[in-house]
Amino acid sequence: MSAVISEKPRTFRAGAFGHARALVCRECGHEVELGPHYACPECFGPLEVGYDDEARARVTRADIEAGPSNIWRYKALLPVPDDIEQSPNTEPGFTRLLRAHNLGRVLGIETLWVKDDSTNPTNSFKDRVVACALSAARELGATTFACPSTGNLANAVAAAGARAGIKTVVFIPSDLEKPKQVNSAVYTDSLVAVNGTYDDVNRLASEIAGEEEGWAFVNVNVRPFYAEGSKTLGFEIAEQLGWRLPDQVVIPVASGSQLTKVDKAFQELVGLGLVEDKPYRIFGAQATGCSPVSAAYKEGTDAIRPVKPDTIAKSLAIGNPADGIYVLDICRRTGGAVEDVSDDEVRQGILLLARNEGIFTETAGGTTVGVTKKLVENGLLDPTLETVIINTGMGLKTLDAVSDAVGPAATIDPSYAAFTATGIGARD
Amino acid sequence: MSAVISEKPRTFRAGAFGHARALVCRECGHEVELGPHYACPECFGPLEVGYDDEARARVTRADIEAGPSNIWRYKALLPVPDDIEQSPNTEPGFTRLLRAHNLGRVLGIETLWVKDDSTNPTNSFKDRVVACALSAARELGATTFACPSTGNLANAVAAAGARAGIKTVVFIPSDLEKPKQVNSAVYTDSLVAVNGTYDDVNRLASEIAGEEEGWAFVNVNVRPFYAEGSKTLGFEIAEQLGWRLPDQVVIPVASGSQLTKVDKAFQELVGLGLVEDKPYRIFGAQATGCSPVSAAYKEGTDAIRPVKPDTIAKSLAIGNPADGIYVLDICRRTGGAVEDVSDDEVRQGILLLARNEGIFTETAGGTTVGVTKKLVENGLLDPTLETVIINTGMGLKTLDAVSDAVGPAATIDPSYAAFTATGIGARD
Repeated sequence: MSAVISEKPRTFRAGAFGHARALVCRECGHEVELGPHYACPECFGPLEVGYDDEARARVTRADIEAGPSNIWRYKALLPVPDDIEQSPNTEPGFTRLLRAHNLGRVLGIETLWVKDDSTNPTNSFKDRVVACALSAARELGATTFACPSTGNLANAVAAAGARAGIKTVVFIPSDLEKPKQVNSAVYTDSLVAVNGTYDDVNRLASEIAGEEEGWAFVNVNVRPFYAEGSKTLGFEIAEQLGWRLPDQVVIPVASGSQLTKVDKAFQELVGLGLVEDKPYRIFGAQATGCSPVSAAYKEGTDAIRPVKPDTIAKSLAIGNPADGIYVLDICRRTGGAVEDVSDDEVRQGILLLARNEGIFTETAGGTTVGVTKKLVENGLLDPTLETVIINTGMGLKTLDAVSDAVGPAATIDPSYAAFTATGIGARD
Repeated sequence: MSAVISEKPRTFRAGAFGHARALVCRECGHEVELGPHYACPECFGPLEVGYDDEARARVTRADIEAGPSNIWRYKALLPVPDDIEQSPNTEPGFTRLLRAHNLGRVLGIETLWVKDDSTNPTNSFKDRVVACALSAARELGATTFACPSTGNLANAVAAAGARAGIKTVVFIPSDLEKPKQVNSAVYTDSLVAVNGTYDDVNRLASEIAGEEEGWAFVNVNVRPFYAEGSKTLGFEIAEQLGWRLPDQVVIPVASGSQLTKVDKAFQELVGLGLVEDKPYRIFGAQATGCSPVSAAYKEGTDAIRPVKPDTIAKSLAIGNPADGIYVLDICRRTGGAVEDVSDDEVRQGILLLARNEGIFTETAGGTTVGVTKKLVENGLLDPTLETVIINTGMGLKTLDAVSDAVGPAATIDPSYAAFTATGIGARD
């Protein structure tokens, strides 16, 4: 399946997509030329970006280290042109990888790291994928940059579009909380509220992509390019560890795309000789209220049964995850697992990360921390192995999840006597 | 004036404060040994960190460039030990410097940059100063890490303290908005609400600092160390421009400390031979509802008349700014100016930055953008010279400032016909 970005056949400039060679079907291997295509014309499987590996083999660690402190340091491994830094974009990535001594102690994990993507330009990992989608949209000649979304993606698309000076249209369900609407509407005058569920919004987006000329929907018709952006999380983890792979990684699962791309990133680094090959385990994290992949993992099946989401982890609430089966494959192949936790455990996860490492995450991050705790308790994650957990977003966007759980320890009059009476000064 | 951090005389380990040599009075030049001192015993002037310039003269650009992607790349120019990266901290800084083509076009400035500190760990520049204060607190043997604050500083202190594993107590006025309380309480179980104004909270903090053993109040008794952290904004701007100074910088003014430290940073870089000497102009930005420095600038006096703040730019609402007179000195000496804008112009400034560059700033950033616009209009800022504006915080913390101004362009049923009827698809 493809969408009409331009009705005229189009020639792209040399190097428009870097070392990308073709779009390759993940199911049957059929190849399609680079363009606004997202499903295999043979088997309807998802298309992925394939590369010219001979060209990429020349990339060295030194080249990467000499690059900018954002995802473009990895531009030779992405479907973007060599002059990508010259085009206005939000410059996401190269976020903190923090050694989490305190949280590790609490969870009983000897060597724990947190990859903190909450400090991206619009405070979630979505800035990475949107930056790659923006490049593709530009090279494909799109005139409108769009997405259906309920939150983080809408923020990232609206911000990147504003900075790039391209017309941006963002579609959301009309019952979305006002703060999330504001956080997108501040960037664009074309926020469209749709009476319906997120699935309704999604269907409308696909229809517009097929009908209107010049529209690039980041997560629909330029999805193969978009998804490659998540690889940079894997690249950064390896580089920030000193060019080596960790033993275990815990990653939240919504559509499942991010988890599959971190695995792809590790495989590419090994294939290009940038890190040594070694075993690693990948774990997926879901909230119980939307855990179709975890359910399938536990049942030992390959079939993902779609669910109707009911969880506070709304950024993970995709009931029919497109890449769910690939998540199962990867977690099983690498010796990892998929696990889920209750909304209460999600809330506790948020507080565990905040109180121990000073990172205020959103519900997706609370899910990842909660699942990591559970994986140690049920013996699926080896606490003696080096472990990285990915924090994908930030707490101010889902403030309600913890606003009833925390507050002042005391309210006092402004006197030293009133303060000493609280006993807080004497606490250990 | 000094505070009791430890009642026993204390010897510090060698290099505990890097190349810092003494605390020097900004008014009379009197020198005090390094310690928890903040006011000159001779004249009560503010103490600043003085350095061993011979030791610092050995620092090269290459040393700095080989450092981490955070403020510790400048550790040799800060009052911190050489092994600072080994102590758990939030690793702030090295934030984006974005070329702002769109905003420049709108404001009529040929070459405009935005230094975006909203992507720091707790989303404001306060993470920089708190990281330096934390190092001092640790070396001074403090057992409690504290501050009086209304918002950004409280977040930064509570997060840094959690990560460092030090007991943290944060004092806020009890009428603070709930979201701001949550954003601190999520990190610490010792948030103390005080019935009174911010000034009351501040006075209580000074009293506790003088009475209790082992307390480091970041903005009270370790303020000289804390304030040095703001220099990293100046260092980064120069490095990110390719090791040169800009022609003009616009900086928001609350206490005025940040503006004075950016100037100090530029002077240090010149003095150490890391950038070429050249003229630069520094401009201060205030909201009219709390503009004591701007008022004094316009009146041509040296005396700052304290005011009772009444503005939506609450993070700039310091009615009696400690460094106000130094701001006046610097803006006048460099050929800059201090200007102020109304709350409406602050809101417009937030939207200008969001719509043109995809950065969602808080009211302080809206003030800076609004003032920059006004400075071009009244001829005080030269639009042909290279200009940097500093964005110090992020919009999710002051959502109310714009939540009534933006929203969906249309609310529709989920059908293509309903969408085309809006006319949004046909818009340019």
